[in-house]
Amino acid sequence: MNQRLTQLMEWLNVENIDAAFITSTDNVFYLSGFRSDPHERLLGVAVFREKEPFLVCPAMEKNDAKNAGWEYDILDIRDTDNPWDLFAKKVHGRIKDVHTFAIEKEHLNVERYEALKQRFSGATFVAAEEKLRTMRLIKDKKERQILREAAAFADLAVETGIHEIKEGKTELEIVAAIEYAMKQKGISEMSFATTVLAGAKAASPHGVPGLNKIEKGNLILFDLGVVHKGYCSDITRTVAFGELNEEQIRIYETVLKAEEAAVKAAKPGVKAKELDQIARSIIHDAGYGEYFTHRLGHGLGISIHEYPSVTITNELVLQEGMVFTIEPGIYVPGVAGVRIEDDVCITENGAEVLTKYPKMLQYV
Amino acid sequence: MNQRLTQLMEWLNVENIDAAFITSTDNVFYLSGFRSDPHERLLGVAVFREKEPFLVCPAMEKNDAKNAGWEYDILDIRDTDNPWDLFAKKVHGRIKDVHTFAIEKEHLNVERYEALKQRFSGATFVAAEEKLRTMRLIKDKKERQILREAAAFADLAVETGIHEIKEGKTELEIVAAIEYAMKQKGISEMSFATTVLAGAKAASPHGVPGLNKIEKGNLILFDLGVVHKGYCSDITRTVAFGELNEEQIRIYETVLKAEEAAVKAAKPGVKAKELDQIARSIIHDAGYGEYFTHRLGHGLGISIHEYPSVTITNELVLQEGMVFTIEPGIYVPGVAGVRIEDDVCITENGAEVLTKYPKMLQYV
Repeated sequence: MNQRLTQLMEWLNVENIDAAFITSTDNVFYLSGFRSDPHERLLGVAVFREKEPFLVCPAMEKNDAKNAGWEYDILDIRDTDNPWDLFAKKVHGRIKDVHTFAIEKEHLNVERYEALKQRFSGATFVAAEEKLRTMRLIKDKKERQILREAAAFADLAVETGIHEIKEGKTELEIVAAIEYAMKQKGISEMSFATTVLAGAKAASPHGVPGLNKIEKGNLILFDLGVVHKGYCSDITRTVAFGELNEEQIRIYETVLKAEEAAVKAAKPGVKAKELDQIARSIIHDAGYGEYFTHRLGHGLGISIHEYPSVTITNELVLQEGMVFTIEPGIYVPGVAGVRIEDDVCITENGAEVLTKYPKMLQYV
Repeated sequence: MNQRLTQLMEWLNVENIDAAFITSTDNVFYLSGFRSDPHERLLGVAVFREKEPFLVCPAMEKNDAKNAGWEYDILDIRDTDNPWDLFAKKVHGRIKDVHTFAIEKEHLNVERYEALKQRFSGATFVAAEEKLRTMRLIKDKKERQILREAAAFADLAVETGIHEIKEGKTELEIVAAIEYAMKQKGISEMSFATTVLAGAKAASPHGVPGLNKIEKGNLILFDLGVVHKGYCSDITRTVAFGELNEEQIRIYETVLKAEEAAVKAAKPGVKAKELDQIARSIIHDAGYGEYFTHRLGHGLGISIHEYPSVTITNELVLQEGMVFTIEPGIYVPGVAGVRIEDDVCITENGAEVLTKYPKMLQYV
């Protein structure tokens, strides 16, 4: 049995839960190695305390699931089948009664929930999310290597984008050039919508790239990442196009100082909130406290946002194998928007910075 | 009151439902004109039989919602608020008791459902999907114009892709070139993952573009679309690179004949299933029946797949304003994969074909 399934089975035993049915794309991938988005069709991993787990997938994906490494039983469902009847039958073939059933309450929709409740009418339904988030929090050696590779693609994407900067080009043209270069490297999916924002737009944390032309004197912000072997990267760099004024430079240097201080402080035993605090106090002391309007960072892995959340209130103690972003920013409307973001992995004594594109203020 | 909200309010009256809370991105956009994907934050439109509707959105998006044209009340929620308490209070400010509550059961997750049930403990929850799907089935004049424009971008994208075909290029390079050209036109989102498949891969309806190189003698299949002003287009063309063998040509001509016959038959009063039947029988008579493995088409609008579903069993009678794809295909492993797809809009006397890129067998 793979270690992740074993861990989930142990949780069922400890919590006195009879079965779990895990249905979100990311958690199915985590448990089974099989990534699929079957839209309205049913996909999931059923796990029991002692019996063999099984995978539910559309019939036409059965071979894909095996090829992805799923070694256990598969309930393959044709479009003409009633998936819930087949599912209930298979569950009851393993265990007689289901008193407690773990599901992903943030993922399963009401329609499916009602179908499930109808077949397991005596059962209590509990949430499985927190357990899975905690399991995914520590990345194993193989995951770390994939995240390292994903970060290297993000470095390359930023480099490509910076080379594309030219007066009169639009933000969307630069986005297109970046994604073109990534596709040539075999990256078919970005981890979120590639963001290139110039000038005033960079000062909005919610800006969307458009057809506005880049001009000299702009700060240009790149925020992007790739999906590589099922794992995400996420990098932000801000560069100068032409000359900057003094305040723009001061803002840049403040963000850089905050970012580097937080990266330096990241190591096992430190609390997540301490990192946020370190960066935030540097920005506050420079007089920009009110312009750093978001948390310091977020966990990174199969999902672009996962645990740990690096906020001012998170008491979580960092451990080896946690991977997250460190991304302070200052957004002063009409003046400048600067964010610098790295992906880091907590190591035995500190943190490995996975993204390696230079952070010194660069004039293009 | 906008006509869509009025229609939903009438439905509540007829069905004796006290309130509806509509939460999917596409339906919120349909009802409010406001498109947003707030991830874990709450977004929705609350509608009542006689009282004014209100929009629920994150506080930082309140102005965006107004700018998008929402003229009614807004419940804006800050991250520190409990959204469900505020929501319940606002609902109770409009109506005293909620006996029946319509929700999107295929969209709302169990966590939110439980939060809602807790605040409206006596209520019965019913599904709103079918009503909204039916409302969205008939496109108004403005929607048709947007869909026409979206289809024109799809034509241009296919043209771009065909121009890019060259021996030794990879499928992903051509995908990248297409999306680059679209971004230059201001299109920031494709309606689904752009598909370019060459040779043997085109014979798999589930193929994914990769780093394999295009060779002479290949049929090359393009399946793509754009999102334009919130609406989707979807086109498929298959072209020849170099010479084809006789069977490949026969397959192409059969698909083309089937597609054109179905397009020609599309008009008010005809059943959806008749179109499928017409195309299917042509393919069957040519001896390829078993290789046309999917439905003839799907509705198209705010969602890439919506009503009507053009299947062999759908008794729905076509009406003016319905927009859907017609996309027969033949996939013979080791021989050829050909699909031809147009977007059509049912008009008073027939159907307007929105996608206009030529369909005659083209040798590149």
